[in-house]
Amino acid sequence: MTSESPKKAVILLSGGLDSYTTAAIAQSQGFDCYGLTIGYGQRHNIELDCANKVAARLDLQDHKTIKLDLRLFGGSALTDEIDVPDFEDHSEAEIPVTYVPARNTIMLSLALGWAEVLEAFDIFIGANAVDYSGYPDCRPAFIQAFESLSNLATKAGVEGSKFTIHTPLIDLTKAEIIQKGLDLGVDYSLTHSCYNPDKNGVACGHCDSCILRLKGFEQAGVSDPITYAA
Amino acid sequence: MTSESPKKAVILLSGGLDSYTTAAIAQSQGFDCYGLTIGYGQRHNIELDCANKVAARLDLQDHKTIKLDLRLFGGSALTDEIDVPDFEDHSEAEIPVTYVPARNTIMLSLALGWAEVLEAFDIFIGANAVDYSGYPDCRPAFIQAFESLSNLATKAGVEGSKFTIHTPLIDLTKAEIIQKGLDLGVDYSLTHSCYNPDKNGVACGHCDSCILRLKGFEQAGVSDPITYAA
Repeated sequence: MTSESPKKAVILLSGGLDSYTTAAIAQSQGFDCYGLTIGYGQRHNIELDCANKVAARLDLQDHKTIKLDLRLFGGSALTDEIDVPDFEDHSEAEIPVTYVPARNTIMLSLALGWAEVLEAFDIFIGANAVDYSGYPDCRPAFIQAFESLSNLATKAGVEGSKFTIHTPLIDLTKAEIIQKGLDLGVDYSLTHSCYNPDKNGVACGHCDSCILRLKGFEQAGVSDPITYAA
Repeated sequence: MTSESPKKAVILLSGGLDSYTTAAIAQSQGFDCYGLTIGYGQRHNIELDCANKVAARLDLQDHKTIKLDLRLFGGSALTDEIDVPDFEDHSEAEIPVTYVPARNTIMLSLALGWAEVLEAFDIFIGANAVDYSGYPDCRPAFIQAFESLSNLATKAGVEGSKFTIHTPLIDLTKAEIIQKGLDLGVDYSLTHSCYNPDKNGVACGHCDSCILRLKGFEQAGVSDPITYAA
């Protein structure tokens, strides 16, 4: 990377804690960052407002939101009439009902499309394989397979460019992610994690995602700046 | 495949000649077919009407159209303010401006999402590596990589199911595709191939896609039932 022209990167930005931290890490590494938010009809649509706030705070080079309605397919508690369960200490072998079929494949594909147009050969995603919910498309083997695919799928790849899929959070605990973000000046009050917020966007405090977040803040020794339902 | 419960397949259906033929082949192989059409903001939006007609004629189990606007990214003559060129006998090493960055990756990802919900482990796409326009994401190596990815990306794959990406046209010439389709009763008057139709949907007759189609019909010894601009 020369100081004259920083490399461009596309960052998948959901409005959650992980993707904001990921974007802050990419910026700290000197990338010019382009944020991509995917509105897929998720139950927690407030994510999209948070993504806009995060993008503005990070002062990204550009931020786009692309909408596609995965409710057409259903099959997940996040996109269908399936209740979001309270946190359960399920084993890693069980994949919960909040899994959205092929979500990260779809999101990375869209990021790849924009990246190729931008001539950005670095894509960042906040996938995490530690304090995660057992999603298959957060595992390192999946990420590596997508990176290989990217170089076969694109004109840029055929012509010799090499895409890299960055997952800077993949081996971190939620507490480590939060600590890393705080060190980089991340303002977690802008973020949203709950799978099942109320009409006003207030987090439920008892779904998998809320519990993992709250435990992370507790272990990091700082308080979570967002509000939870009583 | 038992006679009691045919296997389900998701077919990517564009409204063009290749995908209709692909769907007819899947049906002839005994699959229960679910058509998926992707409206990505393509210049030749008339494709979507044709896809509806084709789906109705094939009497598919279900047909869904999912919309997402790749014009947000641009970078292709099909989605941006770039002129669609007339046919040129370019070498296979040159990838033309009608290439849409990551299009087949995006389409297959969406097909994978729906397939997983349906418990359909067979996905058909009309990719073709012979009379094609040099697109990287029509090559067998790309298709194989996507198939491997599918089994890493999904809950179904992790749990032991095996997705197969079928490309029954991949080694056929356009004339062979047309002959195959006619043998299966395909009605090519319902289809549309032109990259740059006029306002009424009439094919231009001189873009890459029109020229390949016309040559295919000529070599198959039958006349193309659609109308072309004078």
